[in-house]
Amino acid sequence: MLRAEENEYVTRVGPGTPMGDLMRQYWMPAMLASELPRPDCPPVRVLLLGEKLIAFRDTQGRVGLLDNFCPHRGASLFFGRSDECGLRCVYHGWKFDVEGRCVDMPSEPPDSNFKNKVRATAYPCRERGGVVWAYMGPRETPPPLPDLEANQLSEWQVSAYQRECNWLQAMEGDIDTAHIGFLHFGSERAEDQIEGTFRYYALKDRAPRYAVLDTDYGSMYGAYRPAGPGQQYWRIAQFLFPFYTMTPTGLLGRQIIGRAWVPMDDTHSILFTMTPRPTAEFQAMRERGGAIRPILQPNDTGWYGRFRLIANESNDYQMDRERQEHDEEYSGIAGIHLQDQAITESMGTIYDRTREHLGSSDAMVIRVRRRLIAAARALAETGATPAGVDHPEVYRQRSGGVILDEDADWVEATQHLREAYIEHPELDPAIVGGFV
Amino acid sequence: MLRAEENEYVTRVGPGTPMGDLMRQYWMPAMLASELPRPDCPPVRVLLLGEKLIAFRDTQGRVGLLDNFCPHRGASLFFGRSDECGLRCVYHGWKFDVEGRCVDMPSEPPDSNFKNKVRATAYPCRERGGVVWAYMGPRETPPPLPDLEANQLSEWQVSAYQRECNWLQAMEGDIDTAHIGFLHFGSERAEDQIEGTFRYYALKDRAPRYAVLDTDYGSMYGAYRPAGPGQQYWRIAQFLFPFYTMTPTGLLGRQIIGRAWVPMDDTHSILFTMTPRPTAEFQAMRERGGAIRPILQPNDTGWYGRFRLIANESNDYQMDRERQEHDEEYSGIAGIHLQDQAITESMGTIYDRTREHLGSSDAMVIRVRRRLIAAARALAETGATPAGVDHPEVYRQRSGGVILDEDADWVEATQHLREAYIEHPELDPAIVGGFV
Amino acid sequence: MLRAEENEYVTRVGPGTPMGDLMRQYWMPAMLASELPRPDCPPVRVLLLGEKLIAFRDTQGRVGLLDNFCPHRGASLFFGRSDECGLRCVYHGWKFDVEGRCVDMPSEPPDSNFKNKVRATAYPCRERGGVVWAYMGPRETPPPLPDLEANQLSEWQVSAYQRECNWLQAMEGDIDTAHIGFLHFGSERAEDQIEGTFRYYALKDRAPRYAVLDTDYGSMYGAYRPAGPGQQYWRIAQFLFPFYTMTPTGLLGRQIIGRAWVPMDDTHSILFTMTPRPTAEFQAMRERGGAIRPILQPNDTGWYGRFRLIANESNDYQMDRERQEHDEEYSGIAGIHLQDQAITESMGTIYDRTREHLGSSDAMVIRVRRRLIAAARALAETGATPAGVDHPEVYRQRSGGVILDEDADWVEATQHLREAYIEHPELDPAIVGGFV
Repeated sequence: MLRAEENEYVTRVGPGTPMGDLMRQYWMPAMLASELPRPDCPPVRVLLLGEKLIAFRDTQGRVGLLDNFCPHRGASLFFGRSDECGLRCVYHGWKFDVEGRCVDMPSEPPDSNFKNKVRATAYPCRERGGVVWAYMGPRETPPPLPDLEANQLSEWQVSAYQRECNWLQAMEGDIDTAHIGFLHFGSERAEDQIEGTFRYYALKDRAPRYAVLDTDYGSMYGAYRPAGPGQQYWRIAQFLFPFYTMTPTGLLGRQIIGRAWVPMDDTHSILFTMTPRPTAEFQAMRERGGAIRPILQPNDTGWYGRFRLIANESNDYQMDRERQEHDEEYSGIAGIHLQDQAITESMGTIYDRTREHLGSSDAMVIRVRRRLIAAARALAETGATPAGVDHPEVYRQRSGGVILDEDADWVEATQHLREAYIEHPELDPAIVGGFV
Repeated sequence: MLRAEENEYVTRVGPGTPMGDLMRQYWMPAMLASELPRPDCPPVRVLLLGEKLIAFRDTQGRVGLLDNFCPHRGASLFFGRSDECGLRCVYHGWKFDVEGRCVDMPSEPPDSNFKNKVRATAYPCRERGGVVWAYMGPRETPPPLPDLEANQLSEWQVSAYQRECNWLQAMEGDIDTAHIGFLHFGSERAEDQIEGTFRYYALKDRAPRYAVLDTDYGSMYGAYRPAGPGQQYWRIAQFLFPFYTMTPTGLLGRQIIGRAWVPMDDTHSILFTMTPRPTAEFQAMRERGGAIRPILQPNDTGWYGRFRLIANESNDYQMDRERQEHDEEYSGIAGIHLQDQAITESMGTIYDRTREHLGSSDAMVIRVRRRLIAAARALAETGATPAGVDHPEVYRQRSGGVILDEDADWVEATQHLREAYIEHPELDPAIVGGFV
Repeated sequence: MLRAEENEYVTRVGPGTPMGDLMRQYWMPAMLASELPRPDCPPVRVLLLGEKLIAFRDTQGRVGLLDNFCPHRGASLFFGRSDECGLRCVYHGWKFDVEGRCVDMPSEPPDSNFKNKVRATAYPCRERGGVVWAYMGPRETPPPLPDLEANQLSEWQVSAYQRECNWLQAMEGDIDTAHIGFLHFGSERAEDQIEGTFRYYALKDRAPRYAVLDTDYGSMYGAYRPAGPGQQYWRIAQFLFPFYTMTPTGLLGRQIIGRAWVPMDDTHSILFTMTPRPTAEFQAMRERGGAIRPILQPNDTGWYGRFRLIANESNDYQMDRERQEHDEEYSGIAGIHLQDQAITESMGTIYDRTREHLGSSDAMVIRVRRRLIAAARALAETGATPAGVDHPEVYRQRSGGVILDEDADWVEATQHLREAYIEHPELDPAIVGGFV
């Protein structure tokens, strides 16, 4: 439970808010690189931390992210013309480059110096692994990009999905392993699984115990339950500042994943999922496990027109009461992503945490909120640079499941498996027993 | 006319408002029993006094009305699974019974006592005469249900219609007999009626005089005008706390009716009409008189998706200017219900009563507002239990028209006719002369 | 740039706002006369300065403009019956004439005097040149109508277009000649024009110099640039209190135009354009020049249902990126009107002028804002009657282009050409060289 002021504090991300200021310390996924498919292609409306921005790719292929409103008289740069390394406002022909410099001002007399006094708000962008990263913070020279393994693969896959609610309740679903056994697999039975797999143990005991730990990048938890004799099955997952998660849906040591819950504004978010491009077999296994890829509406050019799902609140997420009643699906909603989408959006656009009752399974949720609030407060009060901003290497993390001896120290015993960029061909993914 | 503060006071019904607190002292019609057609059927979203609630019918057929947001982490119970006498949240499997007790909490370890510390907000429900009644008030043991005759018939008929405006302006249309001769029958002429019927007298004199009286259940008025020699035609109608009306559209002594104007929130209401199931002849007479049953959109699952009319503000209530101009209908809008709907919604979502000019025909409207404000104030300031809460018998009332001798005392002379549960086969409904 | 308070001050027009009070000193175009095509035709919902009004044409053809809400109990007069010189509320039959007098009150007893105590808010109306003018101000006897030539032609043409943004940013587009060379003609070249025409000079130099002047009706500017040897091409245009413009799109001395930017409310406006009915040749020339008439949706009866464009924000004004990229149109948006619509609406519903950077080409915009604020302040503080209210003759102005000798005084030299109601058959419109 949070007090009302705390809930405001931790959820609001617009300019000038403490949590918004915290996020602006970091590079953030802003869009898919594929949204700007070629030099001088049409600009794209991007809503990010409550700011209306126009993204464009200039003649040399560089991505620019400018304030929507032309600094002259406020016309939208969305209608702008991208050519010769700049975006030109069609109202009076002023032209800005990716750094926001006004490089042409043809409505003023040639002898005018006014051009050099005007600058558009422009946020630095970088491209990596199919993601356009943006830095909206105060530094002249931005910090380094976080060293996220999933964003630096040679065979990457990146997807984006809009969620029509506040970023935090969406993200909290990712660090809450307890719901897996209900929302996602509530209708499945341990008896139907291969004995000895993660899946078998997970369904056999749906109320694991929890260990939670602060780290130099955020927080980590391990959820554990009995496995074979003298053993425990651990699910280990990460929260990384300011909004990343690594969910434990595979084998620790082999699973590579990064999920970013990026606020569009206080009531809309985009999830960027970064993973290796899966093999056909792996993809088939995931789909058998319930990882149905949600169907998106075609993007349109509106501020909220990107990566929206066909199944949404207005159609009850295409819930099928028959399938729910006959236990074909616990929720009657198809697929893990959509199940999470429905539940987190159903909490209201900004969930009122004064009314909740947290149990032992919410230990990680509690810890992460505390860390977020503390970091935002430290920044606001003392200017303290938050975790990871200047230490990209702390993002070299992995998550996943593992079987440990009952008396093993879970942190120490998994250290080498949690390190990114190390291959573990010796580990057999079949132990997972399906997507869990 | 009301002062702005009074208008706020009397119209707002959310949690913590004085009028909302007043209504919460009473049982209220919340939904039709038919909305929950069978045990363990799909839950229904119910908006009541500004509160989002989920109604369900459990395995034993009992109706539960729970807060929309699961007390754990706020997932909507709309997606819940109803089985084995409880509604189970699909997020973490917590299960609540109709009284809000958490009867299963499978995400916590078996030895946890947390389950007994958590309770969902649950409002007691009862079913009677096709209506699901809810009590949202503070008492541990709710008061008795109001003894409304129309809700206790063996051959009942109950309907529900949403009105997209504040409850009070909608209800005020029901206690305003003056508009009948204009909005509903403005295009009809006394000459075309059977002489000596109510209808004849009503159309002959459209500006009756009024008598208004406070009662132990609310207020009563009589509108009178000349009838035959030495006689007067009286229309006697009731307001009963907190939002019931009995309109005088039939013969006093034989007409049985109850109408409840239940606020969904400050700007949406549902009218529940309770009447005997009409004979075919009676229904035909009503329809000749203009009582066209409004056509509803199919209900959907949204908060505002119940009992909406096809004809509404967006299509000007399917008004037909030709019919209006040629005097086929005074308003060009078809049917009494829709005419009232159009007019009361056209006042704005919450009508600004600082701008009105009340005449002698508004005596009842003025009286009822004063009683509502006084009762809410007495409750807020001294905790005074409002009228009728502990006296269900005061609701045993009837309304209707009657011919009285010029020098009769209207209250005394109609006492026996206004008593519910008494049959009057000696009275001839034909004197009404159509629906008036 | 304006301070936030100034921006509020100059943009808000509802009852009681300083700028709203200023506008209420003047007659205003409220609707097209053709919206009320015949006596006793259906009433029309009119939103004007944030007030909901019902317009009707009575049996004698007079136009009435009444408050939407009946003064009795607030029913909308939109559903009213217009007959025998009045609009009758269908709720209780009260009837009001065009001056707001209650001329019948049939729901009250015949001996009641209440009728004479009730008055509907009614604004005086006059018709001229296809426009219904309304006076919403405080004077018992309204001032004279402004002597606008374009509204007093024998062969007039008047059109109306809704713009979904605040009136000021829309109007500022009209007094900003600098954008012509970009937004409208950015893709055209001087080389393709007939040498010596206005069009040729305008495209040859897209950054003219400016002279700005206060006048007794508002403000005037001249934008000048080199023309033939020893000559300058001047574009002279007018702002007239409180929201009129005369744009310089033709030949000074022959062009007759009046444009009124009338606020519906703070975020919606209607442009009324008044011009002579054009000859077929002139119309063809205008269309070659880009003056494509925007396509309107059919009017509906809603408050915002009048004069809306088919191309609008939701479809990006039917922008064609291909045409933009291939330089067939600078903006990819078809036609001058739609280009202006897109740009001014894209600034947001009320443009935030704290963020702008004004250049030398914005001299007129700056001047007009200052005059508006000063006039509103003078009225609010000292009750000073604003410019033109009592001097209809100051509106006898014209605008347009002219070639002057380099050393001529532009004001003096154009005096006779700027006077309305004078024919100049000696001037050759061909010098314009197309619509500029």
